[in-house]
Amino acid sequence: MIYDLIIVGGGPAGITAGIYGARYKLKTLLITKDFGGQIAKKAVPIENYPGFKEISGLELIQKFKEHLEKFKIETEIDLVIKIEKNKNFSVLTKNGKKFESKSVIIASGADPRPLKVQGEKEFIGKGVSYCTVCDAPLFKEKTAAVIGGGNAGFEAAIALSRWAKKIYILEYGERVMADLENQELAKKMGKVEIITNALLKEIKGERFVNAIIYQDRKTGENKELKVEGVFVEIGSQPASSFAGDLVDFNEKGEIKVDFETFQTKTPGLFAAGDVNEGKYKQIVTAAGEGAKAALAAAEYLRNLK
Amino acid sequence: MIYDLIIVGGGPAGITAGIYGARYKLKTLLITKDFGGQIAKKAVPIENYPGFKEISGLELIQKFKEHLEKFKIETEIDLVIKIEKNKNFSVLTKNGKKFESKSVIIASGADPRPLKVQGEKEFIGKGVSYCTVCDAPLFKEKTAAVIGGGNAGFEAAIALSRWAKKIYILEYGERVMADLENQELAKKMGKVEIITNALLKEIKGERFVNAIIYQDRKTGENKELKVEGVFVEIGSQPASSFAGDLVDFNEKGEIKVDFETFQTKTPGLFAAGDVNEGKYKQIVTAAGEGAKAALAAAEYLRNLK
Repeated sequence: MIYDLIIVGGGPAGITAGIYGARYKLKTLLITKDFGGQIAKKAVPIENYPGFKEISGLELIQKFKEHLEKFKIETEIDLVIKIEKNKNFSVLTKNGKKFESKSVIIASGADPRPLKVQGEKEFIGKGVSYCTVCDAPLFKEKTAAVIGGGNAGFEAAIALSRWAKKIYILEYGERVMADLENQELAKKMGKVEIITNALLKEIKGERFVNAIIYQDRKTGENKELKVEGVFVEIGSQPASSFAGDLVDFNEKGEIKVDFETFQTKTPGLFAAGDVNEGKYKQIVTAAGEGAKAALAAAEYLRNLK
Repeated sequence: MIYDLIIVGGGPAGITAGIYGARYKLKTLLITKDFGGQIAKKAVPIENYPGFKEISGLELIQKFKEHLEKFKIETEIDLVIKIEKNKNFSVLTKNGKKFESKSVIIASGADPRPLKVQGEKEFIGKGVSYCTVCDAPLFKEKTAAVIGGGNAGFEAAIALSRWAKKIYILEYGERVMADLENQELAKKMGKVEIITNALLKEIKGERFVNAIIYQDRKTGENKELKVEGVFVEIGSQPASSFAGDLVDFNEKGEIKVDFETFQTKTPGLFAAGDVNEGKYKQIVTAAGEGAKAALAAAEYLRNLK
């Protein structure tokens, strides 16, 4: 069985590509490890997807998913680990499956960037979290550190304020980069302490996290903070490595594309949304790119015949 | 008073640009002759804007508009007739007003392409219509002709079937270009007659339309049809002429842009949605382009300082 189109990813770009693939009657398979990508993890309501004045990430992704399901396209919950090209594309998954298709849209988005410090991997799910909205309620009356002083870090701290009794925000730089609005909101919560010039060195614990060690970059001194949770908010990295040398990457690991069709250097292989090198990464831009990539794939398929 | 950003147009691209402009705290003015552009005139439900499984054009544009109004940006109901650039951009309107801004996003979309036949202008609003969804109910138990045998023409005929007793579809070519699905639906209505190889020559009437004359392109013979309504569905043309030589046009009159930032050849002047040369023209792609253009305008403004 050979598909017309395989879509890798179940965020706004992938789902929109799926809607368009189905409407153009392409034999489509969507493979994703979960639905929603980064949206589902957003700690604050979404106010910039046109048509919804204010909606939670979970609700919006539910609406996207229901929209896709209307078209009954095939979906496979699995992680893509490799794409190869011979006559057709072969898409290999973690569960050992192999799917063939005439065209592929990579819409696998971005994953949270890890800290790469001692103790991080060991304590994932035991105090270390990359998803505030998922895990904040576990920290009721506890103390947590958020690593990263950008908007995502502040939004995580604000969300945590509802549960935790004390939140530290650790920022590597001289000062935090979050919007003034977020800074003021965090201040108003009265539980948030900001530590700048902080280089995280280690996450410690026994069964669960109980402390972090950071270096004060001004004095060089190592300091310990007693915390039960560590929320990692230092940005994201494109989930693109499985594309191998079928695509070109920029220095951030984002896939290079033509910005009209979203085709990569390999004909029939497209990349839409956060995984590509486009500089504007929004829900509505990802959705628009998913639609364009699917229309370009349909055109590519017509020309194959 | 000098705005940061003037947006020309109130369809999905313009409204999304407005939402983003407001969220980035740009002093924004949106000028449009009406809200909704082509969406508001769509005769069939919209099923391809992600998040809404099925919604009428009017409802969707209402949701977009309410979303924009949340941000209280200034709007002006007027038609832009010229944009000039000195130090800033000057935007001139039909009502004789002049607005100044540091950046401009053209999101004026496309207008229905006129037939350019005798009687067309004279009978606008007196039987000649470019908007089926607006005017179909006026043709209860009447006979109407739809000019154009593409999807838009068939969708117009299908919508008219609810009211009119008889509908002709006139197609210039050898055969109609609409999807099979639309052709079958029109057939099922039992009121639609398709005339191919038909070159419309004249729209006739006294106070109101009462007939059309077309030439049968096979025989060269002129024929008359008694109709009370003429619905023009021969495509659209970009509403771009007011941009003058601040932009480059392609052969269709669409504005040339950089597809990552949607900037035209003039720094600070952007074009998003159906008005530009992009080949994929969908509601979600227009919205995505509006967001990108607004983010690019915000970046342009930051660099001005």
